[in-house]
Amino acid sequence: MRYELYYWPSIQGRGEFVRLALEDAGAPYVNRPPQARPGVFAPPYLKAGRLLIGQTANILYYLGPRLGLAPRSEAARLWLHQQTLTIVDWLDEVHDTHHPIGSGLYYEEQKKEAKRRAHEFRGVRLPKFMRYFEASLGKRHSYVDLALFQMIEGLRYAFPRAMRRLERRHPRLVALHERVAQRPRIAAYLASGRRIAFNPHGIFRHYPELDER
Amino acid sequence: MRYELYYWPSIQGRGEFVRLALEDAGAPYVNRPPQARPGVFAPPYLKAGRLLIGQTANILYYLGPRLGLAPRSEAARLWLHQQTLTIVDWLDEVHDTHHPIGSGLYYEEQKKEAKRRAHEFRGVRLPKFMRYFEASLGKRHSYVDLALFQMIEGLRYAFPRAMRRLERRHPRLVALHERVAQRPRIAAYLASGRRIAFNPHGIFRHYPELDER
Repeated sequence: MRYELYYWPSIQGRGEFVRLALEDAGAPYVNRPPQARPGVFAPPYLKAGRLLIGQTANILYYLGPRLGLAPRSEAARLWLHQQTLTIVDWLDEVHDTHHPIGSGLYYEEQKKEAKRRAHEFRGVRLPKFMRYFEASLGKRHSYVDLALFQMIEGLRYAFPRAMRRLERRHPRLVALHERVAQRPRIAAYLASGRRIAFNPHGIFRHYPELDER
Repeated sequence: MRYELYYWPSIQGRGEFVRLALEDAGAPYVNRPPQARPGVFAPPYLKAGRLLIGQTANILYYLGPRLGLAPRSEAARLWLHQQTLTIVDWLDEVHDTHHPIGSGLYYEEQKKEAKRRAHEFRGVRLPKFMRYFEASLGKRHSYVDLALFQMIEGLRYAFPRAMRRLERRHPRLVALHERVAQRPRIAAYLASGRRIAFNPHGIFRHYPELDER
């Protein structure tokens, strides 16, 4: 089965969580630009044979056992999915640090509000999410590890100063990030032209004024 | 099996989406106040025998076929789950109309930003979500219908003027709301003391200054 991933071709965004799972598993897939379609609210969506699956967490839930990145038992799958949904909530909050008023407005039109929201995020929410995941990492490699790798990677890009401080207290997350980065297929992917660089159009954005001083 | 739902006892909030499914199915359950627990980021969470399941959408995914509120086929379950995840995104955006800066701050501390965000929500996001669901309602009763009922109900409470205008263009959603409200167990639940009234501590809040003029 060759999967087709529909997502914006110029950013990592939510699609990257799916790409990392496909790359780690060495699964055949192609990237396609998204189109307006009935039954899809927003990209990413995945075409898998006759199935069209929307919502990042839903796609990962579907792919998990098929890619060898999740066990097949119901309890284990629900647990990984619960973790994924929490990561997606975390990612939404990262997005809202630079777009607290609306996605349809430019950052510059909501910069003042972004500074306040980013301050709350760095001080309250980011430590809460990091503490939670530091304490609840799984033992077996799964697509959740890949998603956490991407969160750390993106947060380092967006908030380098805040992360430098926080990482000292979260050694297990730092070790997980390192372990994932060294997986042969992930290392090859990150070094390839297929990995889109972080940039000021994605979800993770580096605006120095939103980071710690 | 008697389910135990852990959620704040004073608000509908995210827990209400689970309560409506349990009530519609006539399933035995008890409400319990949430406690800090490892492996749970935030309420609601459901105890089902030995399973502890977090994240609203995940709980509904688990309960769906067990309560007769979802088919058992994988494709149908993924589709209902995709719809649920989109509803949960919508609900998050409702929350952020009154808390655009941070959940840890009072509304009064972010009222100015809330006015801007609510303006964007009413003008851009709310119509987009309503248009999407108006066009993609299912034929068979499911837990997604119950969730959409709750969205309409909450949005009418929070944004009565905006909804009056929008509902004219979304007759299928209005009809679905009416149909769900008349289901015998739902009607009995809504009339009972078990249904917590909307109030200024929940996710749906009525602040006239956030609604249309």
